[in-house]
Amino acid sequence: MSTIDYDKNKVILVICDGLGDRPSLDDKTPLQAADTHNIDEISKAGINGLMDVISPGIVPGSDTAHLAIFGYDPYKYYPGRGVFEALGADMALNKGDVAFRANFATVDEKMRVIDRRAGRKGGKELAEALNGLEIDGVKVSLKNTTEHRCAVVMEGKTENLSKYVSDVDTHEAGGIVKKCVPLNEGEGEKKTAKIVNEFVRLSYEILNGHPENEERRRKGELPANIILLRGAGSYEEVPSLKARFGFSAACVAGASLYKGVAKYLGMDVIPIEGGTGRANTNLTNKAEATLHALKAHDFVFLHVKATDSMGHDGDFEGKRDMISRIDKELVARIKDADAYIVITADHSTPVSIKRHSSDPVPLVIKGVGVRKDRVNKFDEFSAASGGLGRIRGIDLMPILSDFMGYYKMYGT
Amino acid sequence: MSTIDYDKNKVILVICDGLGDRPSLDDKTPLQAADTHNIDEISKAGINGLMDVISPGIVPGSDTAHLAIFGYDPYKYYPGRGVFEALGADMALNKGDVAFRANFATVDEKMRVIDRRAGRKGGKELAEALNGLEIDGVKVSLKNTTEHRCAVVMEGKTENLSKYVSDVDTHEAGGIVKKCVPLNEGEGEKKTAKIVNEFVRLSYEILNGHPENEERRRKGELPANIILLRGAGSYEEVPSLKARFGFSAACVAGASLYKGVAKYLGMDVIPIEGGTGRANTNLTNKAEATLHALKAHDFVFLHVKATDSMGHDGDFEGKRDMISRIDKELVARIKDADAYIVITADHSTPVSIKRHSSDPVPLVIKGVGVRKDRVNKFDEFSAASGGLGRIRGIDLMPILSDFMGYYKMYGT
Repeated sequence: MSTIDYDKNKVILVICDGLGDRPSLDDKTPLQAADTHNIDEISKAGINGLMDVISPGIVPGSDTAHLAIFGYDPYKYYPGRGVFEALGADMALNKGDVAFRANFATVDEKMRVIDRRAGRKGGKELAEALNGLEIDGVKVSLKNTTEHRCAVVMEGKTENLSKYVSDVDTHEAGGIVKKCVPLNEGEGEKKTAKIVNEFVRLSYEILNGHPENEERRRKGELPANIILLRGAGSYEEVPSLKARFGFSAACVAGASLYKGVAKYLGMDVIPIEGGTGRANTNLTNKAEATLHALKAHDFVFLHVKATDSMGHDGDFEGKRDMISRIDKELVARIKDADAYIVITADHSTPVSIKRHSSDPVPLVIKGVGVRKDRVNKFDEFSAASGGLGRIRGIDLMPILSDFMGYYKMYGT
Repeated sequence: MSTIDYDKNKVILVICDGLGDRPSLDDKTPLQAADTHNIDEISKAGINGLMDVISPGIVPGSDTAHLAIFGYDPYKYYPGRGVFEALGADMALNKGDVAFRANFATVDEKMRVIDRRAGRKGGKELAEALNGLEIDGVKVSLKNTTEHRCAVVMEGKTENLSKYVSDVDTHEAGGIVKKCVPLNEGEGEKKTAKIVNEFVRLSYEILNGHPENEERRRKGELPANIILLRGAGSYEEVPSLKARFGFSAACVAGASLYKGVAKYLGMDVIPIEGGTGRANTNLTNKAEATLHALKAHDFVFLHVKATDSMGHDGDFEGKRDMISRIDKELVARIKDADAYIVITADHSTPVSIKRHSSDPVPLVIKGVGVRKDRVNKFDEFSAASGGLGRIRGIDLMPILSDFMGYYKMYGT
């Protein structure tokens, strides 16, 4: 918006990835065990509830979950993970392009996977050696993001490519690199699978004897001698948050997936110094970036990844302490901002089962005019008796846009 | 699964038919008035909530309710009651067959119904006399199940038959047997209605002077001299629970409708000695059969019918005492099984109105990792403040399959 509209309110939406949990240590969840006095202050001042991010019993991925929370029905709008990875890596995408999540990996000469992550180390020159290959008339771009991680884009402007192809990645060490096969019948599927297989073959041919890998071998390190692709996605433009709801939005996140989702929906992605998407992320910088972004934007999405990672690791204490840090280093700084403060998660990642689960996530909304309930603690149990009841992820954005003043009345 | 997977959990799902009620005697529901200390123990250890089996305000039939609870949207999967009756009676069904629920009845020579249930008595020889008739090239099979009840199947393999035909049954005594008419325009509907009418005519012709009916008349009993059909259903195979969710399932039920629903969804139906679907059912045998079925199955559905029948009879004390018996004779035996214990109902049948109602039913889930709430009594009121909030029938199976470990993540 070019002019300030004094009837409009702003929102800070904090999403702690995988925050929800099940009771385990002393019958408590990490969120219950953490020191959350700042977050609890928000609970006390706000309206609380539980949220099924997709729908009850459905276990969300992080990508589909974020789409739902931003008001985009994932069953309609989900383009496939690769699209978000490529956008998060700042790669350009055009309609019809097919994008992949990819890894540098280490294989032996029989294509057996020694390490899916090539010692967690990629390399700029290795990436450059593969970037821009042309296979069957299709340009293939590759970018190394963090550590061993890459995104790969196949240009679909002249060719009919498809996201319905299988993963090459073995998903665990010890297996033989898989052939990519079409998952649907169709020329586009066949063509895409063929290009993927050729790209993987070429990646080994080019990387295996690359001087940088020879150097790695000399140092006793694992060579990054192949690229493994997975999570094909097909890019298509979707209406932006601004177009759908009317407000401008910014994203403060470290991990590239979330930046990718944000870009896909037309948010401005704010670069964060020290925002890593890991436990060592600089929460203070994130809080400051959020407050700064709020000046020029109506809606700021603030994402913290490490809670999820610790759930996957089964690390109760780590998850608990990360939550305490979020409370102290992040929420304490933003809680009095002139905006609705919303705190929730994209899904549960219980430490007891080390995977995403469908257990609903707690949600609080604090701000002018909300129907404050009697909940005074932010956790999975207290939220159940809150004034919001049990809602779905897809409902959150309409609720917030009404509080913000960007509502559309249905009927007269 | 051919091998045991120790990451997987099991479920016992107890459905007390028509259990839900409204406050009446001393402002209590039968469930509140009953002695339910075993069930309450489960409530205390579990997570509770209310469930709209179809959706708020929609009054479910028992058949559609069970489909929803098992995760099959009845608006998509409901084949018509007759299919369940025929399957429950162990009759073979093939794609395109049309099945009916049917009664032996007593009519006078003017086709006026004297007793819709022929003194609640069928007969093997009478059934044999009608079984296997061929009408207009269509084979019609009949089986007498319990008392006056029958199932009728018309073989659709060569003919285009339809379930969209009206009931012949008058649904009350005193009326004239109805003509079956097509409910949709179409050749299949016309043909089916014609066969039904001819079958009803033949049933009177064959049964009225049958020696067994002469014998009944001599003894002063009502003759079973006609078959009244209703509830046409059209059989089509649906994906089994195993195919959809991945786990094996068994059914422990007395009444044939529920066995039919279970077969339709690919459950193994366990024969129960003394399982009658009535108040005299042997609950102890049902509990033992459930524990036994749990050894070879991941999911056991345990059904008790009499609570519903007593709701229909307006019998508060009977319903209350039946619930106390369920608590003592059944739940006490299964409550400590190594499985998630789930107790709920398919709908409410308030004694005050003697019919199904849309009042949501209480639901409790006890087992590893559930978010135990503060509810410590299993009834329609306490459940409203439970941690599950208010969910729908169709959500239950996804929730349970996630607890069981048979989840599929949506997204990545």
